[in-house]
Amino acid sequence: MTTLGVFDSGFGGLTVLRALLPQLPGARFLYVGDTARLPYGAKSQATIARYAVESARFLESKGSEHLVIACNTATALALDDIRAAVSIPVTGVIEPVVAMSSHSFPAADTLILATTATVESHVYREHCLRAGLNPTEKACPLLVPLVEEGWIDHPVTREVLRIYLAEALEMCSPRLVILGCTHYPLIAPLVEETLRSLGCEAAVVDSAEVTAEAVAAQVKKETGLSSAASTAVFECYATDSVEKFRRLGSHFLGQPIPQVHLLNLGG
Amino acid sequence: MTTLGVFDSGFGGLTVLRALLPQLPGARFLYVGDTARLPYGAKSQATIARYAVESARFLESKGSEHLVIACNTATALALDDIRAAVSIPVTGVIEPVVAMSSHSFPAADTLILATTATVESHVYREHCLRAGLNPTEKACPLLVPLVEEGWIDHPVTREVLRIYLAEALEMCSPRLVILGCTHYPLIAPLVEETLRSLGCEAAVVDSAEVTAEAVAAQVKKETGLSSAASTAVFECYATDSVEKFRRLGSHFLGQPIPQVHLLNLGG
Repeated sequence: MTTLGVFDSGFGGLTVLRALLPQLPGARFLYVGDTARLPYGAKSQATIARYAVESARFLESKGSEHLVIACNTATALALDDIRAAVSIPVTGVIEPVVAMSSHSFPAADTLILATTATVESHVYREHCLRAGLNPTEKACPLLVPLVEEGWIDHPVTREVLRIYLAEALEMCSPRLVILGCTHYPLIAPLVEETLRSLGCEAAVVDSAEVTAEAVAAQVKKETGLSSAASTAVFECYATDSVEKFRRLGSHFLGQPIPQVHLLNLGG
Repeated sequence: MTTLGVFDSGFGGLTVLRALLPQLPGARFLYVGDTARLPYGAKSQATIARYAVESARFLESKGSEHLVIACNTATALALDDIRAAVSIPVTGVIEPVVAMSSHSFPAADTLILATTATVESHVYREHCLRAGLNPTEKACPLLVPLVEEGWIDHPVTREVLRIYLAEALEMCSPRLVILGCTHYPLIAPLVEETLRSLGCEAAVVDSAEVTAEAVAAQVKKETGLSSAASTAVFECYATDSVEKFRRLGSHFLGQPIPQVHLLNLGG
């Protein structure tokens, strides 16, 4: 049975795990949510890299044969450090989504919505430029707290999105909008609706879904794993309260989380 | 020169330092913002206590003679652990504000606005009940991110406050509203205005200001420090980007922060 490690600063990466489970039914997943130190979105590169490497090493030590960085911020700021720290293949969320976007929408004007840290790293911009896309980046720092408050379909979230998207549309006229944070799939319908209300017909790309497809294709190639009729299994580790992880996490995963292990990374 | 250590998970405690500086003009202040692991507001007791004790020990090791926990969440969840871990007097933000409140408004119906972790600890409720106040606690998880986004006088912050306060006023009719988070002084005028628009005439108590007065009185008693004509000096330490601390922190402190030292607490 192939084991995949999936890592995020908290709950958002569970949207990637959710997309992965049906793609790799014969696999076993280990998920780490570094909830004691979340959110990464407003922290510095050095701090994020230090934290992410600790989780990556833990997942490798538990037998992971492939690592998924299911967090845009950690991918943007720590992918190279993680790749240097472990000896298994590592997939982040940025390369697959940019590859898919440039394939489906060549040379498109592209708006990337993300956390402050992801935007300030300009990693999306660099990848988009290399892939021939024309990128504009927009930091949306309030969206993660709003999603975590559970205000998924809420007038305040709608108004915050309207403000962020109106500011972004003053800078560009995108054909493509990338949800560059794994929390955002939960408000994807609201993003689409708000774009339409502002007269923008851009397609909305979900980094969680696209990453899961890319990882599944690569793992099948690496391991010869076939689409077995069995069900994928998963185990979750959290660095803060396991009770809270179970409760909040199930919204992101879309199914109950039976058990969560407490993980002490020394921070 | 008396040295005081002031600790917070991030920037909020700078509102307490801001109130302390004119109160103790002859003193030297060391401030630690544990920005690499902020916010504490949604974390568990065990994690918060572990983090807070590390900062408290650091401040004692640097020569602090009195420690101020300038963070409601750390006070609520870690005050006993901190007092057990260091050998200098420790003042939190909760005891002074409840003492002052019960003195000025005996037996008042009291609404406490705070983070989720502070509310779930029910430490404010216990202190209020012991002091003869009649408390109602209300978690306001979005207020910290809104203040950190800089949306201080903003329609969205106004609407979020209206929602939180309307929910709270369904549970109680307060004569007193305690701002139980050191981020909230920045939106104190908005809280007052929103209460009035909802027909509530309660007084608003700022835990930063009240704590500073209590600490100043106690330190003067401990050390015989007189109100010297000199100016208080301060040094800041942050566990994440010192550049960001300098930039954001100056809004909370109300004056420029000339230099910030990077502190690695091993997390």
